[in-house]
Amino acid sequence: MRYELYYWPMIQGRGEFIRLALEDAGADYVDVARRPRGMQAMMFQMKRNQVFAPPFLRAGTLVIAQTAMILHYLGPRLGLAPKSVAQRLWLHQQQLTISDWLVEVHDTHHPVGSELYYEDQKPESRRRAADFRSARLPKFLGYFERLERPRRVTYLDLSLFQMVEGLRYAFPRTMARVERKYPKLVANHERMAARPRLAAYLASKRRIPFNQQGIFRHYSALDA
Amino acid sequence: MRYELYYWPMIQGRGEFIRLALEDAGADYVDVARRPRGMQAMMFQMKRNQVFAPPFLRAGTLVIAQTAMILHYLGPRLGLAPKSVAQRLWLHQQQLTISDWLVEVHDTHHPVGSELYYEDQKPESRRRAADFRSARLPKFLGYFERLERPRRVTYLDLSLFQMVEGLRYAFPRTMARVERKYPKLVANHERMAARPRLAAYLASKRRIPFNQQGIFRHYSALDA
Repeated sequence: MRYELYYWPMIQGRGEFIRLALEDAGADYVDVARRPRGMQAMMFQMKRNQVFAPPFLRAGTLVIAQTAMILHYLGPRLGLAPKSVAQRLWLHQQQLTISDWLVEVHDTHHPVGSELYYEDQKPESRRRAADFRSARLPKFLGYFERLERPRRVTYLDLSLFQMVEGLRYAFPRTMARVERKYPKLVANHERMAARPRLAAYLASKRRIPFNQQGIFRHYSALDA
Repeated sequence: MRYELYYWPMIQGRGEFIRLALEDAGADYVDVARRPRGMQAMMFQMKRNQVFAPPFLRAGTLVIAQTAMILHYLGPRLGLAPKSVAQRLWLHQQQLTISDWLVEVHDTHHPVGSELYYEDQKPESRRRAADFRSARLPKFLGYFERLERPRRVTYLDLSLFQMVEGLRYAFPRTMARVERKYPKLVANHERMAARPRLAAYLASKRRIPFNQQGIFRHYSALDA
């Protein structure tokens, strides 16, 4: 099965959580919008399949949107999910909490509106980011630090790698200060980064660098 | 099967999307936190089952959180989902977009931080709500208006009822102005409200009225 991933070509964004799973599994996939005329293809498929927003995945005749649901679908097929239905639902539930967390990361630099520039909402961003750093970040990090996860590596572990990676990029001073409180998440980050296929991907040109158009952005004024 | 729903007892909030499905199906369920000592029971179960946030559902030995996932689980069991696996995934995907939409409704009155009062973020709320009314609301309403839904009633139809109901409460002037552009959503709202079990529920004391602690709140300054 050759999977077709559709996502904005210039950012890691939500699509990256899917890329990490596909890459770690060594799956056969095409990152459609990054190919010549790929954006046109994406817009065509979005309209045709009534997709609200990227990312979405084509797998044969199936078209699936929503990051967590794509991972719920791919997980068992990529060997990145537990065997039992109950455990798979549990994993999906955790991934949905990652989705919620990611919205809150995004809103630190876009608290007023996603169609406006950061530059048009700087004072609001400072307030929102302060709340995020003091209240929300410890809540999410603490939750996932304490969460008993299955031993077997799943897409959730890859997503938690990405959260730590992204938070380090966006909030370097904050993360440097608080990370020691979350040794399991830090260890998970190292373990994932050392997986051969993932390491090769991260070192490749396929990995889009973090930048100021993505979800994780570094604005010094928003860090501690 | 007697289901146990756990959610904040004073608001409709996210839990209401689950209540609507349970009520419309005439399911046997307990709204645990609304019973004597129910909040204690909820806190106990949350901790015990490592739940990030309400709502969550207990169904036998299974404990499930995340609104859309609870509906994905309940849908087939309540006769509120299509038969095929592909169609059920599709429905879940749509419900996840409702979840995204609901976060944006919430953030109109809490753009800076959910642990702060609205009164502490009024100017930011005015900006965020203006962006929501002009950009986001038409995007979501238009998307669901155009979406080809299965004929058979599903939990998504009940959730779309709740979105229209809540938006009318929160943004009455805006909705009065724009609703005629979304005749299918309005017709769906009427059709759901006329379903006997749902109508009985809506007229009962089990239906918590909209209020200023919930996700849908009416602040005149945030309406058009």
